[in-house]
Amino acid sequence: MTTSVPASEFESRIQAIRERLDAAEADAAVWFNATSIEYVTGFHHIQTERPVVLGVSTDRIELTVPRLEVERVEGNPRIDEVHSYFDYPGGDPIQTAAEMLSEMGVESVLADMDGAPGVMGYEGPPLSEFLTVDDQDWVGEMREAKSETEIELIRESAKWGNLAHRYLADLTAVGAHPVTVSQEASTKASRAMLDTLGSEYAVRERGDGPVHAGYISGEETALPHGHTPNERLSRGDVLITGTTANVDGYYSELERTMFVGEASDEDEHYFELMLEAQEVAFDAMGPGVPVSDVDEAVWEYFEEQGITEFARHHVGHNIGLGAHEPPYIDRGSDATMEPGHVYTIEPGIYTEDAGYRHSDTVAITEDGLDFLTQFPRDLESNIVRDESTYLD
Amino acid sequence: MTTSVPASEFESRIQAIRERLDAAEADAAVWFNATSIEYVTGFHHIQTERPVVLGVSTDRIELTVPRLEVERVEGNPRIDEVHSYFDYPGGDPIQTAAEMLSEMGVESVLADMDGAPGVMGYEGPPLSEFLTVDDQDWVGEMREAKSETEIELIRESAKWGNLAHRYLADLTAVGAHPVTVSQEASTKASRAMLDTLGSEYAVRERGDGPVHAGYISGEETALPHGHTPNERLSRGDVLITGTTANVDGYYSELERTMFVGEASDEDEHYFELMLEAQEVAFDAMGPGVPVSDVDEAVWEYFEEQGITEFARHHVGHNIGLGAHEPPYIDRGSDATMEPGHVYTIEPGIYTEDAGYRHSDTVAITEDGLDFLTQFPRDLESNIVRDESTYLD
Repeated sequence: MTTSVPASEFESRIQAIRERLDAAEADAAVWFNATSIEYVTGFHHIQTERPVVLGVSTDRIELTVPRLEVERVEGNPRIDEVHSYFDYPGGDPIQTAAEMLSEMGVESVLADMDGAPGVMGYEGPPLSEFLTVDDQDWVGEMREAKSETEIELIRESAKWGNLAHRYLADLTAVGAHPVTVSQEASTKASRAMLDTLGSEYAVRERGDGPVHAGYISGEETALPHGHTPNERLSRGDVLITGTTANVDGYYSELERTMFVGEASDEDEHYFELMLEAQEVAFDAMGPGVPVSDVDEAVWEYFEEQGITEFARHHVGHNIGLGAHEPPYIDRGSDATMEPGHVYTIEPGIYTEDAGYRHSDTVAITEDGLDFLTQFPRDLESNIVRDESTYLD
Repeated sequence: MTTSVPASEFESRIQAIRERLDAAEADAAVWFNATSIEYVTGFHHIQTERPVVLGVSTDRIELTVPRLEVERVEGNPRIDEVHSYFDYPGGDPIQTAAEMLSEMGVESVLADMDGAPGVMGYEGPPLSEFLTVDDQDWVGEMREAKSETEIELIRESAKWGNLAHRYLADLTAVGAHPVTVSQEASTKASRAMLDTLGSEYAVRERGDGPVHAGYISGEETALPHGHTPNERLSRGDVLITGTTANVDGYYSELERTMFVGEASDEDEHYFELMLEAQEVAFDAMGPGVPVSDVDEAVWEYFEEQGITEFARHHVGHNIGLGAHEPPYIDRGSDATMEPGHVYTIEPGIYTEDAGYRHSDTVAITEDGLDFLTQFPRDLESNIVRDESTYLD
């Protein structure tokens, strides 16, 4: 059971970065993006108005943080030295980072951006005011194909997402409130995960999670980004569910189209078309396949069925530390599926009245596919019968 | 009871923008930032790899969105026309936006940024490839001072945050799991808010919320950005709580330092210093006061008490549609408190063993302060006695 990123994984990431430094004949690389900093060092933080700056040279790894993060960095075995400014805007984060790089003996860097992003009103000088800065997106490239360990972390996430989905289905009934069902499923699944993993659980969240479950219901399902209405469930309501779990920063995605009590003939019709579209994608995908071919195969199926007017988005996206990561399974992408890519497969159909979309998380292997999410996909398994327990 | 942003509020925002357009002798203004687009139009979306672009001219308001958002925009009475690209990366969001601006008769714009932000791997051309682009940060400036309506929305948020905090306290007991207590308090308070507001509730979230409650406990409180440990509560544990509620996009912030069963002499000592530091800030703040004076007053108090080594951050931040907004109450800021600013006041003290921090949300009025959060701040009210009900 892999429930956190092991030290060896960070070593190999850092080694890969240093090989790129050598190849580029560069002094050092710098990152301002929170997810990239987490990927390289394991230090995770929320991107706010207080910049965090990572510097990696051929022999040193140093970090600039606001004062409030110093103690969270100090125990990190990969970070040789931590530099800090007190707070923003009084502190000088970019100047502190420039001094850090100077002490590291660095005169020019390859950076993911030229200064910190303008999050929550942050404004500050570019790093290039202090030293020579050129571009790199190495972590973005490295994150596309997951290691075996990363795939195990996503599989672990999917396991708890599956459990949360079982709770969602069990708690659903006519008269139940969709928000309460969502929150109770999250609570029960989180507790099961925490009690099962015990000391193996890598503490990651504040107050909520680590499992997140919920659904949108009724007419809101007609909108791909609909919301959960303040309206109790009725017989015949369509649900689009979603569950995930945070496993040391990694996510999976499981979504199902479900029906409260019964599915109408129209529901059944579009559900089966959606299910077939997902099969078309599964059949088309694999190592070496252009992502555009997969999106195109689903589009052609929609054309054959005369339902392109009900399409609202492409087939899916890569997933890992980010909930959405490139490559995107899109007709306009020139990316190719490679072993280690982990894709959500979620072609959707949206009428005026309701939406129909499953999402499964699927890893590309050397010779095929590895399905990480497991909840049954067929219609019968996704009709919640009235005899479900209504706990409220 | 104000539970959503009324049409008149958007009209006055749009009028203020058009006055700025006139003053700048500009054709149109453009926004890529999701929160700014929400502020101007009421159309809210999550910032992803799929850019959304708002154009406001002297007589038109038009929006470019990915196909999946079209139906969510169509009912918006402020948006004269919606333009869409199918998806990313196949679609051309910036070109679609450029064509939209061209159809609006616009040749040059003032924009919040020159192209969409690089979120979730998005990459695309600057808008200035298509037309003349100069900078503006009008919405950032307008958002600093809240209208009376906005303050009522934050007050409504604080009301449900207060209730959630009561549930947090009531559910806390020796042996309870901090994650479960957090999630149950969120669930109960969300349900109370939804059932109370009924059709007045502006549907905003997916599966979780609208009320969010939680705490960190034990040694994690020593870290300003600590996490909730996977460890049941023990007698004597320190808690730092946090609650908020989403009221049509607006947030408040309520935090309390609490103790399970009893506070040690050391706890009591630092709690009282923290409480006094918060009083120092309340006494120093008001309309026309430089924010740096407030942060400086607390720092001087820490110096008098010989506890600057336990300080980790400045006194607080503005809050509204964003959880953190400028101005920041920081010694290095040159901002001045103005009527309509809404600040969190949260000076913290962090020892090696525990942290001590309350956070209250306080509006600046024409002649003083308006306290939006209400939960008792004194020590006695924040010791959770063992006889609390342990529901699990």
